[in-house]
Amino acid sequence: MSRRTVFFVSDQTGVTAETLGHSLMTQFEGQEFRPVTLPFVSSLDKAQDAVRRINRAAEEEGLRPIVFSTLVQDELREIVVTANALFLDLFSTFVGPLERELNTRSTHRAGRAHGMADLAAYTTRINATNFALANDDGSGGDYALADVVLIGVSRVGKTPTCLYLALQYGVFAANYPLTEDDLEAGRLPARLEHFRSKLYALTIKSERLQQIRTERRPESRYASQQQVQYELRTAEALFARYALPWLDTTECSIEEIASRILNTSGIERRLRP
Amino acid sequence: MSRRTVFFVSDQTGVTAETLGHSLMTQFEGQEFRPVTLPFVSSLDKAQDAVRRINRAAEEEGLRPIVFSTLVQDELREIVVTANALFLDLFSTFVGPLERELNTRSTHRAGRAHGMADLAAYTTRINATNFALANDDGSGGDYALADVVLIGVSRVGKTPTCLYLALQYGVFAANYPLTEDDLEAGRLPARLEHFRSKLYALTIKSERLQQIRTERRPESRYASQQQVQYELRTAEALFARYALPWLDTTECSIEEIASRILNTSGIERRLRP
Repeated sequence: MSRRTVFFVSDQTGVTAETLGHSLMTQFEGQEFRPVTLPFVSSLDKAQDAVRRINRAAEEEGLRPIVFSTLVQDELREIVVTANALFLDLFSTFVGPLERELNTRSTHRAGRAHGMADLAAYTTRINATNFALANDDGSGGDYALADVVLIGVSRVGKTPTCLYLALQYGVFAANYPLTEDDLEAGRLPARLEHFRSKLYALTIKSERLQQIRTERRPESRYASQQQVQYELRTAEALFARYALPWLDTTECSIEEIASRILNTSGIERRLRP
Repeated sequence: MSRRTVFFVSDQTGVTAETLGHSLMTQFEGQEFRPVTLPFVSSLDKAQDAVRRINRAAEEEGLRPIVFSTLVQDELREIVVTANALFLDLFSTFVGPLERELNTRSTHRAGRAHGMADLAAYTTRINATNFALANDDGSGGDYALADVVLIGVSRVGKTPTCLYLALQYGVFAANYPLTEDDLEAGRLPARLEHFRSKLYALTIKSERLQQIRTERRPESRYASQQQVQYELRTAEALFARYALPWLDTTECSIEEIASRILNTSGIERRLRP
């Protein structure tokens, strides 16, 4: 089977083109694709260089590449579109319909979707990240300032979710790992009692948690079936006892855990893309 | 001026629809938009609920909303498209051209672009995040395992960039804050000397750094013009002395810093979207 190169071309980071393009390509099974990201294509030189790279891939593979573009500037797009490729324009395809709907012309300025907005937004993001770091894994405990406090057993996804909530949404997220003492007592530690309304519980299927813990500490008590099942069973009983909102993270990516927490808890995001 | 609601509808987190939609809407200045994200629209019920919310906004505002959709499943899209709105289909608009190009039918499966792929990818991501946490701010120092070590003065963007590199790309990124001792000596600390090829320097304009430090510690020596200028000047001299690759982060978002580092250093990403 022949391989085909898929280019993600952007005047910014290319993350949006990658994500949407990848989602589209996964609709085509049994095909082999080689992904290449060309970010920061923001000058005529770089646009011409992109054309050369695309044409080289076409020649080497004997199949024209697929190009997912989020280029904003007409003069750059007009160059890249001349490459020997299927050019899929994720941006300007929608500008026309929007201009007609809004009855106004677009500015065609270079996209700053991922650019630094203003100092306030930047500061929110950094403060949220520092908050997540300072209140990770039961440390800190500055729960009065938290938008949400994730609780759950070790390796259920609390830390990366808190960091993602901070970076993506500017949300102040702390996390608290349930200790064996907490689980045995079957109750929340005193310092969390005051903040019950901020708690959000994460759980996971025991087979999955065993896999994840085994990656970390093979053949340990920590990763044993018995220990994992005990911790999850008692943690879930505790969540039920306090009627905490909860999520099973077994099938979830970090993005999905974060988004589901915001969606079901009503926590306001402090940042927009 | 009348306000219009912009919906971002997705069967996943909605982040892609938000990012691309936001980038498109910033092309229209002087218009006021109210952003509403409807994530996890993955059932007929939820699709019908989305229609009700869109129609309610149309009625309340007297202007039909704009809908950016990344819905993958035909049967859900066919429901949402009936709402009283300008429906911009970021997904299926491109499926037809791809089917013709690849000469094959797409599977029309629900998008899993942000879903959990396999255990190996998940583990990479979590390990990279833990690595960033353990090797943040000069601690840890496990530089032999690092893909990159960011260096620079305090508040130049090192920590959030390392976390973003881990979460988005699975890259193992450590960071080291240049101390006053390092700056006075005008040389790298001994424990970094062995890893010069992994170093990537960040700098920033002094006015900007003053603003950022003032947010943190107003009227401190740390945030003073004199101190900030001294640190940046000596740090940049050190970067030049060692011929380190460097980036000015003044106008950059975290995403952009991360993407530029990967793009110019040749570090391989360990994850694809």
